Amino acid sequence: MTLLYPGSFDPVTNGHIDVALRGAKLADKLIVAVLDNPNKKNQMFSLEERENFLRVVFRDYANVEVFSFSGLLVNFAKDCGANAILRGLRNPSDFENEYPYAAYNRLLSVTEIDTVYVAATPELSFVSSSAVREMVKYLDDLPNINALSSLIPDVVLEAILNLKHY
Amino acid sequence: MTLLYPGSFDPVTNGHIDVALRGAKLADKLIVAVLDNPNKKNQMFSLEERENFLRVVFRDYANVEVFSFSGLLVNFAKDCGANAILRGLRNPSDFENEYPYAAYNRLLSVTEIDTVYVAATPELSFVSSSAVREMVKYLDDLPNINALSSLIPDVVLEAILNLKHY
Amino acid sequence: MTLLYPGSFDPVTNGHIDVALRGAKLADKLIVAVLDNPNKKNQMFSLEERENFLRVVFRDYANVEVFSFSGLLVNFAKDCGANAILRGLRNPSDFENEYPYAAYNRLLSVTEIDTVYVAATPELSFVSSSAVREMVKYLDDLPNINALSSLIPDVVLEAILNLKHY
Amino acid sequence: MTLLYPGSFDPVTNGHIDVALRGAKLADKLIVAVLDNPNKKNQMFSLEERENFLRVVFRDYANVEVFSFSGLLVNFAKDCGANAILRGLRNPSDFENEYPYAAYNRLLSVTEIDTVYVAATPELSFVSSSAVREMVKYLDDLPNINALSSLIPDVVLEAILNLKHY
Amino acid sequence: MTLLYPGSFDPVTNGHIDVALRGAKLADKLIVAVLDNPNKKNQMFSLEERENFLRVVFRDYANVEVFSFSGLLVNFAKDCGANAILRGLRNPSDFENEYPYAAYNRLLSVTEIDTVYVAATPELSFVSSSAVREMVKYLDDLPNINALSSLIPDVVLEAILNLKHY
Amino acid sequence: MTLLYPGSFDPVTNGHIDVALRGAKLADKLIVAVLDNPNKKNQMFSLEERENFLRVVFRDYANVEVFSFSGLLVNFAKDCGANAILRGLRNPSDFENEYPYAAYNRLLSVTEIDTVYVAATPELSFVSSSAVREMVKYLDDLPNINALSSLIPDVVLEAILNLKHY
Repeated sequence: MTLLYPGSFDPVTNGHIDVALRGAKLADKLIVAVLDNPNKKNQMFSLEERENFLRVVFRDYANVEVFSFSGLLVNFAKDCGANAILRGLRNPSDFENEYPYAAYNRLLSVTEIDTVYVAATPELSFVSSSAVREMVKYLDDLPNINALSSLIPDVVLEAILNLKHY
Repeated sequence: MTLLYPGSFDPVTNGHIDVALRGAKLADKLIVAVLDNPNKKNQMFSLEERENFLRVVFRDYANVEVFSFSGLLVNFAKDCGANAILRGLRNPSDFENEYPYAAYNRLLSVTEIDTVYVAATPELSFVSSSAVREMVKYLDDLPNINALSSLIPDVVLEAILNLKHY
Repeated sequence: MTLLYPGSFDPVTNGHIDVALRGAKLADKLIVAVLDNPNKKNQMFSLEERENFLRVVFRDYANVEVFSFSGLLVNFAKDCGANAILRGLRNPSDFENEYPYAAYNRLLSVTEIDTVYVAATPELSFVSSSAVREMVKYLDDLPNINALSSLIPDVVLEAILNLKHY
Repeated sequence: MTLLYPGSFDPVTNGHIDVALRGAKLADKLIVAVLDNPNKKNQMFSLEERENFLRVVFRDYANVEVFSFSGLLVNFAKDCGANAILRGLRNPSDFENEYPYAAYNRLLSVTEIDTVYVAATPELSFVSSSAVREMVKYLDDLPNINALSSLIPDVVLEAILNLKHY
Repeated sequence: MTLLYPGSFDPVTNGHIDVALRGAKLADKLIVAVLDNPNKKNQMFSLEERENFLRVVFRDYANVEVFSFSGLLVNFAKDCGANAILRGLRNPSDFENEYPYAAYNRLLSVTEIDTVYVAATPELSFVSSSAVREMVKYLDDLPNINALSSLIPDVVLEAILNLKHY
Repeated sequence: MTLLYPGSFDPVTNGHIDVALRGAKLADKLIVAVLDNPNKKNQMFSLEERENFLRVVFRDYANVEVFSFSGLLVNFAKDCGANAILRGLRNPSDFENEYPYAAYNRLLSVTEIDTVYVAATPELSFVSSSAVREMVKYLDDLPNINALSSLIPDVVLEAILNLKHY
């Protein structure tokens, strides 16, 4: 069974990694798919950078593959042979936001591609890419830079610190 | 008793139609009122088109009237003699979003215009205009174009297909 | 249009009265219907008492009638000619609890009896019969007995105080 | 991959069947496991009846097996070689109720048995066993007995009707 | 400023301890108050045991005091000179459940005793006394008894293990 | 104990004032801190105006101080010696939105600055600055201008009316 885990991953967080690895334990293959959304403003990292971080993070997991995609998710799911979409749920709002997408993806796909969820690991339930991006704006003022390392993998932390050295 | 069902209706969905017709069964007159909001970006259809779709949809319902309005809803409600505002609730988030509006509209109106809700019919509880607009962006890639016909009335589907033929 | 407002009303609170009177402003007739549920434990007032309180509360409202009923709500709705059921929503949990009932009542009734909601007036959004019953357990210890009068009508407060004199 | 779908199934509903079959499409094997909870009051059907209904429902699905279990779910999961638990989510409240169970089951199991969710199909999102049991109490008064057949499989409907003939 | 942290604490969990110590950091004095509710069924530990566990847990915190109380919380709050009640919020449901209590306690108390909340530390957001009591029912079957030690303090774990040795 | 109540306060509402004064009753000192966010669009009042309104509102409260700040809240909290951040919660959505901020602020601050909440007073639970700004857009059309005075303090109402006289 192939699971497809889509997202913007700008940047990938420890919350995303937790969801992906739990999916990879259950599936024969887990495809992590980075959405190429050129219209999205205020991106921190380019598509290539985001993809590259994910490849580094999952390099030791033989059944995890990383791709990017554009256009309709159901088409990409079909192209890569995914049986279902995987998403993480941190709280009731996430469930309310995801609910219509699951229905639309079943409706739009000829084979009714389904969506499965895992609940966020409690200690990661507050982590989001948008919060990381917000903190990075104030990077020089962070009283406790190591705090970031509990939220994001090393490869992203290094890239953030390098960004700031220029 | 006259009910006023306001919205952007960009475009009207089968979810809107369900709410309106359930209101029309209860009220002597149901007024469907399209908000004229020129500042709103990314509109798919003009005010006139949105109004026209609604007139087509409700042409066989003698106690349904379609108007557009701008400005404060409570003023329009007074002008058209509405006794209450009608809104649909698809989920708890809709309730949380609507709750302050109901309070404000009672507060602002001299005669305390009230708001009544109906809960979305379950099989339409995931339908939204914004999702329809999103799908239309990818219209040529939809694996299953008929899927749209379970979400929107024929008159809107035809207009969407015509849009794309130009 | 006839609205049916069902409940246990043990006892009727100012929150119930607010919902009922807002319904009565919109409907030609509002029927307040007290559920006769002999299996319910820990009732504070008998069916007759609860009905009587409601009759006192609404005696000056010509279009409000008070009844009791047992059995299926949809059957009582049909018998009394109601067009729709009325319920109040205090918060998102109320919406989640009411949602299935609305669906079941449409499904079970031959004529698809619908349910309409009004949102609780904010200053009454925390009032519940169960909280009143809980306070009455500690009536002699209440530091501020007049607090109860902001929650329940006088006729109920008097009955509660009389209960305690025995 | 083996999924374990536990529940009381008193009785199995069309909502349960939908969740199970969606799980069975993804897993190599789906085990439907009926909780034997002798302390639970007001059961409508015995453990054996509930198990039997499920066997009838899934008899044509080669990769679905039906068992009953008692005691800790994580122990049963280990005994039957399940890789993860499957649960359906109808609304945000379901998510809030399930969230701690997922955490406890990961914590208690030596191999961190995980839980995956699917969101209820919208038209079944209001269906619950408890509502079915409630309707059955009023079976002779149901204005529309066929309504039940949209909620439960035929084998359960027949058993309910037979119950009433005695 | 004196904060009053009331609860059943049957048994005290690491979630309760986290809330209490965060309150104790802010207040001059924190009073942990165990509700004496003789009508509550299925209690695991007696009032005296629950109080004793709390005294052991907080023995090294000079500004934490442990009491039991019965009757109305606002009266106990007045008697012990509390300025406000402290409660933990693990999720939106906790907020919805607590909201009316805060309103009632302000209403009933002559001096409008207020309630302040802290949000559960994410890694403890799933912990509840009722789940601990449920696990203890299956203590001999727990695959991983040390799991309990991440949920409850040592003094409670020892008492649970001793209970079982008899 | 010093509490820090941060916000945009554009403009301060009666809801904010209620939260602040309840905090000021509990704390030795309450600091109301206006966020200087020059990137925020559609501001109604300048930072100076917003600060000034707050100073007028709280001029008679000896333990309330008003400041503005920019940058990371945890740094400002440390600079002004705050022991905890204070926030109001109007509904479950507010709780869901605030939850990650509390976690991030504990994580980022060296001394783990905590956050405490009070629940909105029910009759103010629907009030928001954004709704006030929306109404002001239609000020000349408001059927009931005094309605605004139940939402905002006099000093803000006067400023709004003056704005319109130019």
